[in-house]
Amino acid sequence: MVQIAVLGHGVVGSGVVELLQKNREEIEKKSGISFAVKRILDLRDFSHLPYGDRFTNDFSDILNDKEITVIAEAMGGISPAYEFTKKALLAGKSVVTSNKELVAAKGAELLAIAREQQVNFLFEASVGGGIPVIHPLYQCLCANRIDRIAGILNGTTNYILTKMETEKADYEETLKTAQKLGYAERDPSADVDGHDACRKICILASLAFGNHIYPETVYTEGIRNIAPEDILLAGTAGYRIKLLGYAALTENNNMNVAVRPMLVSKEHLLANINDVFNGVLIHGDAVGETLFYGRGAGKEATASAVVSDVIEAASRKGNCPFVYWEDSQNNRLTDGGEQFGSFYFRADLSTERLLSILPDARKISAEGKTAWIISSISEKELEERLSQHLFIKLKLFS
Amino acid sequence: MVQIAVLGHGVVGSGVVELLQKNREEIEKKSGISFAVKRILDLRDFSHLPYGDRFTNDFSDILNDKEITVIAEAMGGISPAYEFTKKALLAGKSVVTSNKELVAAKGAELLAIAREQQVNFLFEASVGGGIPVIHPLYQCLCANRIDRIAGILNGTTNYILTKMETEKADYEETLKTAQKLGYAERDPSADVDGHDACRKICILASLAFGNHIYPETVYTEGIRNIAPEDILLAGTAGYRIKLLGYAALTENNNMNVAVRPMLVSKEHLLANINDVFNGVLIHGDAVGETLFYGRGAGKEATASAVVSDVIEAASRKGNCPFVYWEDSQNNRLTDGGEQFGSFYFRADLSTERLLSILPDARKISAEGKTAWIISSISEKELEERLSQHLFIKLKLFS
Repeated sequence: MVQIAVLGHGVVGSGVVELLQKNREEIEKKSGISFAVKRILDLRDFSHLPYGDRFTNDFSDILNDKEITVIAEAMGGISPAYEFTKKALLAGKSVVTSNKELVAAKGAELLAIAREQQVNFLFEASVGGGIPVIHPLYQCLCANRIDRIAGILNGTTNYILTKMETEKADYEETLKTAQKLGYAERDPSADVDGHDACRKICILASLAFGNHIYPETVYTEGIRNIAPEDILLAGTAGYRIKLLGYAALTENNNMNVAVRPMLVSKEHLLANINDVFNGVLIHGDAVGETLFYGRGAGKEATASAVVSDVIEAASRKGNCPFVYWEDSQNNRLTDGGEQFGSFYFRADLSTERLLSILPDARKISAEGKTAWIISSISEKELEERLSQHLFIKLKLFS
Repeated sequence: MVQIAVLGHGVVGSGVVELLQKNREEIEKKSGISFAVKRILDLRDFSHLPYGDRFTNDFSDILNDKEITVIAEAMGGISPAYEFTKKALLAGKSVVTSNKELVAAKGAELLAIAREQQVNFLFEASVGGGIPVIHPLYQCLCANRIDRIAGILNGTTNYILTKMETEKADYEETLKTAQKLGYAERDPSADVDGHDACRKICILASLAFGNHIYPETVYTEGIRNIAPEDILLAGTAGYRIKLLGYAALTENNNMNVAVRPMLVSKEHLLANINDVFNGVLIHGDAVGETLFYGRGAGKEATASAVVSDVIEAASRKGNCPFVYWEDSQNNRLTDGGEQFGSFYFRADLSTERLLSILPDARKISAEGKTAWIISSISEKELEERLSQHLFIKLKLFS
């Protein structure tokens, strides 16, 4: 019997406790291990629950309990999740977490402690909710040199962009609907400004490339400026606008990491990932292109990933060597602005004037609106040529 | 240093040797393990290769070598792969294989031996080439009750169906192109008649549901009868024809398993998996719907999966409990013919006559051709009503 503790009894934490209960037989049969949730940390009163006697508001009850070998951290936020996780790892307990903020900010340090202590620090649920993507990345694709990752990593923004297209609605209106449905927070900035997606692409890139990439060093652009006409015009040209997290190795083994809304060809699988669903494209030198798709959030889906990590942590004796990256000073991050690419843009210039500046630009028109697509130009160059005139520019995903 | 042997130096076997060489550093860094290919079994002469001295044509050289702890079987076919695998497992060596025929025919027996001997029998490469799908299914989704799997599991037929649509070409012509490009065998029946897809859905279903499902007991229909007009008419109605492997738990915990061409809504991700690519949809009670996509075949992609299993086998002390299913007499397989569903069909009946038999059928017309779609009917009922008149019927995927 493996005794575990759950930190936080919110959406994810309660989901973990309930899933371990609901699918107990299935889990025991498949993993060969029985699990018991011995303690749950939460400041609130849950004494009315059938398992109400297991709650504590004192982390030391868990830390000092030698029987507890695996902790599922589901509190969110950096503090005190960070302090608790660090103490637990140092005490020789494995920690699994759904907390992307924690992993993106403190991953390298916590992984180093886990390695030293020969325990596991796992975080499948921190990216893509229930979608198996972290585990496939570090283990199943272990024989590959991973050179590119691109993904729809935030369900809220994907829902908004999908609805803006299907309902022909504007951003503000769609955000309000998303908030009503519980798909967006009252303060939506973590989602709509791209910070959530940024943490996730940083975790994936750190794991794939072996160096910690800190979110605050990554170019991050959200979806607030996307207008209905951009969706219309992009659609006319055969594209859909998606908020993508993107990470690629460049020729010099540097890393190009960004979060931004991009135009994705409607033929591409990523363009067909709609609503709150997430999808992550991973390219390896041997495997080629792979994609992992599913529900990127939600109580049960996230709990599914947390519990799979609990099982992995319990079944693996010692530290899992695959899950590791070094701390870094981001000296390998490049400025993507110099790279050549294709761009969609709108600008307040007459057709004649625009074509005199950018003769190769291709006009898109629909319902009296106009935009342009231009290829083989760097973002810097485009910005310089259109300084003062640019409304919006979006890179094309390729 | 883990010493391994590779059985068979064909496309997959040589790919495994080369990938272990090419990405040696990456693999060692990630897994913490060094690998050496000590012996390669092949009857042909490869003495000209840089590693030509490691070849043997005598399996006992490998079986009796105590240093060799993991064997990668890449010979294909059942015999002698089966005998060699069994002997190796009984001798306490782990075996990983890309051989779907072997796993679909002998999986339960070989898994039982592996469990007894506390070694591993792993087969990620047997389904979906390099796509991580077996591993995510047994480990990452371990906390789920899996109730449905559906997938495009054969690249050859998916290539043919894609080209029939995009080139408006007929089956025979497209098959010839596929053969020229090396995407189809000279004798294409294993692919086009659905047998390859059948083995793969049997492996996935056995793993998900815990009972060995033998391919010869599964309804299997290929793509030979698909006419260009079916693709046209299905397209007009908003569908694409895909050869799907399908496995679902029914209400009574029975299993409904089949391989057949189905109409998939163009909005659905499976409809957007084209050319030689594969995709597997897995539905679990907690995680909801997930999809795994990538290149379903090819030397390097398949080698990527084999090597990941080699690493898994070497890094796991003892048997991996997740990978297991019981032998069974298929007594849980149901006859899907009684189930209600929606169907596309063509029949040589006038509109009046057809509507007198099936008043709810909906007509589809394009380029002077006609077909019908009908909902809420069992396949048996449809066949009975249209006996003598049916050209083709295809189930709708939902």
